[in-house]
Amino acid sequence: MSAFLFFSLSKHITPVAQKTGIPKGTRDFGTVEMARRNYIFDTIRSVYRLYGFSQIETPAMENLSTLMGKYGEEGDKLLFKILNSGDFKRSVSAVQYEETAPAALAARFCEKGLRYDLTVPFARYVVQHRDELQMPFKRYQIQPVWRADRPQKGRYREFYQCDADVVGSDSLLNEVELMQIIDEVFTRFGIRVCIKINNRKVLSGMAELIGAADKIVDITVAIDKLDKIGIDKVNEELASVGLSEVQIRMLQPIIALSGTNAEKMAVLRNVLTDSEVGRKGCDEIEFVLDKLGDTLRNPIEFDLTLARGLNYYTGCIFEVKALDVEIGSITGGGRYDNLTGIFGLPGLSGVGISFGADRIYDVLNQLDLYPAATCAGVDLLFINFGVSESAHCLSLARETRAAGIATEVYPDAVKMKKQMNYANARNIPFVALVGESEMQEGRISLKNMITGEQRNLTLEEVINCIIHTSAI
Amino acid sequence: MSAFLFFSLSKHITPVAQKTGIPKGTRDFGTVEMARRNYIFDTIRSVYRLYGFSQIETPAMENLSTLMGKYGEEGDKLLFKILNSGDFKRSVSAVQYEETAPAALAARFCEKGLRYDLTVPFARYVVQHRDELQMPFKRYQIQPVWRADRPQKGRYREFYQCDADVVGSDSLLNEVELMQIIDEVFTRFGIRVCIKINNRKVLSGMAELIGAADKIVDITVAIDKLDKIGIDKVNEELASVGLSEVQIRMLQPIIALSGTNAEKMAVLRNVLTDSEVGRKGCDEIEFVLDKLGDTLRNPIEFDLTLARGLNYYTGCIFEVKALDVEIGSITGGGRYDNLTGIFGLPGLSGVGISFGADRIYDVLNQLDLYPAATCAGVDLLFINFGVSESAHCLSLARETRAAGIATEVYPDAVKMKKQMNYANARNIPFVALVGESEMQEGRISLKNMITGEQRNLTLEEVINCIIHTSAI
Repeated sequence: MSAFLFFSLSKHITPVAQKTGIPKGTRDFGTVEMARRNYIFDTIRSVYRLYGFSQIETPAMENLSTLMGKYGEEGDKLLFKILNSGDFKRSVSAVQYEETAPAALAARFCEKGLRYDLTVPFARYVVQHRDELQMPFKRYQIQPVWRADRPQKGRYREFYQCDADVVGSDSLLNEVELMQIIDEVFTRFGIRVCIKINNRKVLSGMAELIGAADKIVDITVAIDKLDKIGIDKVNEELASVGLSEVQIRMLQPIIALSGTNAEKMAVLRNVLTDSEVGRKGCDEIEFVLDKLGDTLRNPIEFDLTLARGLNYYTGCIFEVKALDVEIGSITGGGRYDNLTGIFGLPGLSGVGISFGADRIYDVLNQLDLYPAATCAGVDLLFINFGVSESAHCLSLARETRAAGIATEVYPDAVKMKKQMNYANARNIPFVALVGESEMQEGRISLKNMITGEQRNLTLEEVINCIIHTSAI
Repeated sequence: MSAFLFFSLSKHITPVAQKTGIPKGTRDFGTVEMARRNYIFDTIRSVYRLYGFSQIETPAMENLSTLMGKYGEEGDKLLFKILNSGDFKRSVSAVQYEETAPAALAARFCEKGLRYDLTVPFARYVVQHRDELQMPFKRYQIQPVWRADRPQKGRYREFYQCDADVVGSDSLLNEVELMQIIDEVFTRFGIRVCIKINNRKVLSGMAELIGAADKIVDITVAIDKLDKIGIDKVNEELASVGLSEVQIRMLQPIIALSGTNAEKMAVLRNVLTDSEVGRKGCDEIEFVLDKLGDTLRNPIEFDLTLARGLNYYTGCIFEVKALDVEIGSITGGGRYDNLTGIFGLPGLSGVGISFGADRIYDVLNQLDLYPAATCAGVDLLFINFGVSESAHCLSLARETRAAGIATEVYPDAVKMKKQMNYANARNIPFVALVGESEMQEGRISLKNMITGEQRNLTLEEVINCIIHTSAI
């Protein structure tokens, strides 16, 4: 019916086949992109493993009851909801349909949603499997998440998170090790970063001090702008969110905080001397900085303006910025004392970090930091000269593959030029030419596609040559 | 409101926190399961790479226009559909709501769906990116798919597919190499299998021969039951689907087909002598079997009853059965000549295979075939004796990690017994005890958790010992 309409309305358009495309905010990853992404995931995975984290995976779909209410009102709207199968409308009459707002109606039509992050599914996992888990439980998880955000440059509706968390341990040694992991990962990538650390308890102490616990976010947002807008504008903004002159005056030493971590800490300790929670926050930061000593290869900076969006953090919070690319936070994390409480398991403390794979990908691209081997695909291509030659090449290819050499036999006996173009386009470093004479002599003409050099070799020599050149 | 209802109706139940659980038909994968699944994926990936296949990934969500109508009417029902964000009901009035059937209404409320397999997204990918692709294009793809099937033992709503396809080449050498890949993968797993091969053209030839092209599926289904129900019952079933006596008589040599592949082929060639398409099918099978020769370590069997469900296959079709476990097909595939036609790119031939990771997982579990190293997680645990000892252990752990040893420092200074239990439960082979005296001497007491042996060593000796024992 709609096809009929289409044709009758568009006589001048040649009927075309179905248009191809993917939902906005999503991406296809081609072979080069995948090789690069795998390099990122493999690097992060290796370091996580080295620090004793084990992998888990959770389903893409969670019950909406698990997800709703965990990310604030805005987050609820950004959840992708999955229509119930079959007669989803059964329990909603036309009158109810008309009278019910979309959000409430969605809750009637949908029981499941796509995960929005890896933290809430992890909390659900820990509670559900608590009897099987050995505490402290150190897990990592590398999976896509989905958000119905407005797509824009660098913001996608499907993207990967790479999380590591420790639950069931209050020890600040976990924070120390997570900082070492961050340092190790970015050292391996060759990305220079600054690791920023703060503590929610310090922020709470500040708020307590000036009697404005409810304005803590506004305050940090305003202080964060110091570099850009100057002290007067910051104070104006503090006034505009409702702080009194006295309150603003008390904040001045904190706003002007500068110098080394130790210098900042000294000022802050002085300001927070009457706040128990504030002092505790200072202790925690100092413990982590002290234990790290000078072991990190990237700078770590105590940054009082670091607040992070999510309000489930209760202790240390961290964020990582690339020094050579303007792109915002590329890794973040912190300690949360009661994430599993909502699922019925209170009193379990956790701390974790999350690498932003997509932004790291952009940084690596921009700085061109991929190791040469990242895109290494096929090592050797046998040119196809015809039926009997290709049959012979198949058996040679069995031997090179047994030696660990990624090998292709061009499947069709098309023109030589086309086959060589294929090798070039795919960056295949070696091409084997086995025509009638080579077959009779039991030899192979091996062409090095980079140097252009061509040599007549035995199979064994070919294998040795490729293994030594490619360092497979 | 509903919370109020709950409490007023259930006075005797202590109010509990939110129930945890995951949607039916989905699974969490814990650390041991993940190690095993990674072993499966890594093995398949390695072999695909060795044969020159490169990885791609496509989004979990596709436009419903891409997915609908590709899997038959039943398949359309099994697609998970994603509710449009925001005011999804805007364009549907209450009257329309009332009058529209659920399936049609779903199409108004949802533009996107979760992918149902990897083949259709791949076809969409090839068409969308045709200008960037080098033909023949050999890609592999390992990603989850989702189906709203009724969950049951061994059937899930979220499961992984591991596909490899070659598009843009008609050559049967591709079929040959895919058989070699199957053989190599199952040899690496240690799973004994039978590879079954057939050809749609042979089936078409048979149907042509007896003048019953529309009954080809019924015929193969009936013939497939020969072993179980015997020749008389098979003939009864053929009659019941509407074949005449003459037609059934003509099928007898085919039903009774037995012996070696060569013997079966001889009979079939004789029967199909007047069918051009049938002879072509025989040629194709013979080419593949001939080129494979005796190179496979698993038997390959020409099986005329192999029809496979999907009707987009046009040439060779394959299926793999485990010999030592009753579980159905664990791998399948075939050639399709026009998969991209529906997206506007006709004339592109492809051939591919798909490993069923979940069933392979079940087979490996049942036969207990995982290599010992599969679950290897952490190599070394430092016991935590207190603040200064653990700080010292942190710096030792930096050294062992730098040597590639996966190391943990127990984060809390709890009782020794609890820490040793942790090491045991996690199968950590080595535990390092560094108390006050060891710290002063600059040495480490290393306990081998398998032999129970404990030795006093230098850091260098510890590293050598673990590297040589674990063969990291």
